[in-house]
Amino acid sequence: MTNITLAHGNGGLRMRELIDSIFASQLANPFLNTEKDAAFLNLEAKEWAMTTDGFTVQPLFFPGGNIGSLAVHGTVNDLAVSGAEPRYLSLNAIIEEGLSLKDLEKIVASMATAAKEANVHIVTGDTKVVPKGQGGGVYFATTGIGEKMAALQLDEQRICAGDRILVSGPIGNHGIAVMMAREAFGLHSDIVSDSATVWPLVHALTTLENISAVKFLRDPTRGGLNMVLQDLSRSSALGVDLHENQLPIEPAVQSVCNMLGYDPFNLACEGRVVAVIAADMADTVLSVWRDLKQGENTAIIGEFTHEHQRVVMQTPIGGQRLMLPLEDEPLPRIC
Amino acid sequence: MTNITLAHGNGGLRMRELIDSIFASQLANPFLNTEKDAAFLNLEAKEWAMTTDGFTVQPLFFPGGNIGSLAVHGTVNDLAVSGAEPRYLSLNAIIEEGLSLKDLEKIVASMATAAKEANVHIVTGDTKVVPKGQGGGVYFATTGIGEKMAALQLDEQRICAGDRILVSGPIGNHGIAVMMAREAFGLHSDIVSDSATVWPLVHALTTLENISAVKFLRDPTRGGLNMVLQDLSRSSALGVDLHENQLPIEPAVQSVCNMLGYDPFNLACEGRVVAVIAADMADTVLSVWRDLKQGENTAIIGEFTHEHQRVVMQTPIGGQRLMLPLEDEPLPRIC
Repeated sequence: MTNITLAHGNGGLRMRELIDSIFASQLANPFLNTEKDAAFLNLEAKEWAMTTDGFTVQPLFFPGGNIGSLAVHGTVNDLAVSGAEPRYLSLNAIIEEGLSLKDLEKIVASMATAAKEANVHIVTGDTKVVPKGQGGGVYFATTGIGEKMAALQLDEQRICAGDRILVSGPIGNHGIAVMMAREAFGLHSDIVSDSATVWPLVHALTTLENISAVKFLRDPTRGGLNMVLQDLSRSSALGVDLHENQLPIEPAVQSVCNMLGYDPFNLACEGRVVAVIAADMADTVLSVWRDLKQGENTAIIGEFTHEHQRVVMQTPIGGQRLMLPLEDEPLPRIC
Repeated sequence: MTNITLAHGNGGLRMRELIDSIFASQLANPFLNTEKDAAFLNLEAKEWAMTTDGFTVQPLFFPGGNIGSLAVHGTVNDLAVSGAEPRYLSLNAIIEEGLSLKDLEKIVASMATAAKEANVHIVTGDTKVVPKGQGGGVYFATTGIGEKMAALQLDEQRICAGDRILVSGPIGNHGIAVMMAREAFGLHSDIVSDSATVWPLVHALTTLENISAVKFLRDPTRGGLNMVLQDLSRSSALGVDLHENQLPIEPAVQSVCNMLGYDPFNLACEGRVVAVIAADMADTVLSVWRDLKQGENTAIIGEFTHEHQRVVMQTPIGGQRLMLPLEDEPLPRIC
């Protein structure tokens, strides 16, 4: 048998074979027991974070990753930017009849690698099979729990005018890499998704002496950097001044955006962090992150202001561009 | 706007509106904060259970419930039969473009009611929108964590010959209710799904003096009672003798099964528990469960034996029928 059939989802022998041969074998860890309905965990720390994310990216494979690695990175990153050390994941797979077992195996293998890199265990899971034409190959949902680091007091209410905004690397790569993998537009590029775990970046902040300078962290996924800053401007009742010439954007990403009419500012990243840091510590965080491979292109891109309550891009020639929240645009399925 | 559009999934304003107006408003609780990437939980007990389940039932609405109530019951029940008190859920919604907002609202309302009844909080969630033709209206995935009850030592390795098998009520109702909601076959019936939380049944067991007599609990969902017993026979290396005239099956369910060629033994329940109980305590558990509304039709249906290693149905006229594990049959999507 080389493709998924509806019988792989019926709760019988075929389902057991699928789980054993593809999922359990690659995701094995001391907590995962596919014969049981639940995983048992010792949670001795006082406070834990729980988060969840769904993954419906098309196509399933793209330069720099696939839906499997993405499903691990996405949830691991949501825990990390919440100030929690990622520990345990659950995994749901909603598989479309006809998916090739070889593709599924590749996807689960990437998932296993990503989990290993992020030092998390996938401790429980479920698979469902839906008829051909009622899915997109495979959809995943992952839920993660992580140990809250007491020292990090992330709270957008602590943001004040003057605080600096940092981004840990070039934006928009993931969005463009996926879009180009789906629809070639007759274009060729070497653009690779930034999909990766950001936990090392967050963990590095815990070494700071003045850790309270770290006020907010988020990974700019759906809605991009724009949506993160729009949300922050609204919740802090402050404005954001951005410096266009400081925004890290790879030239190839910018030129594809120019051709297709996209703004990298709205495109998803899957391995970047936006941080709000007290002004006097911004350079320190900049250098801590630049010392890490994954943060070597970190940039300070702007600051909060009480002079207005909008997100405003300062252009290099002295102009200003008002950045508006994304509304009706049906952006490509990038996660 | 009356239907879901792709823009409801783009990470922008429409998505925020959808989350606020339909999800956050109905699922509100002290732990859920849709502005944050994770929920924060105090987990002071030593051992916790984590489980997850996906829901792709067709149609979305059926007599006795809908995909929303089912998505809560399913995961709550997996925690309960693992011997854990259900506490927190995460929720993923993968919504198909074109779903009516009214239907989505009804579904989320049932979810809220089910969560309230089971005394669990939905603490974190995510929504994705997939294009028309790539989903089944809506798919859900829920992950639950629950507090392990130390007194319940559930372990199929403790099962021995003579142990009794109980089921907490009639089997097959959910499977047939969903099938008839989807395809009328020109038939009419009043069969209602058994979808419900089984936590009260499990909780009642903790009042037993001789709690160690409770050796195993499971909810017979996909694969039905048959798959649970096949798994147990395999893992215990014992046989199972069932008494056909003890099996609780509603006459209406049995006659639909006869007409359509299904065996209720293979059909899913979504509100029943199968328990393995030491012989001398089986009658006690029977009466404890029968005292509860949800267990009033509990029956002792068979026992383990070391005389063979199969699942065998003893018919009322003295015959024997060998029950085989479900293999290739693509049973209807009932969860």
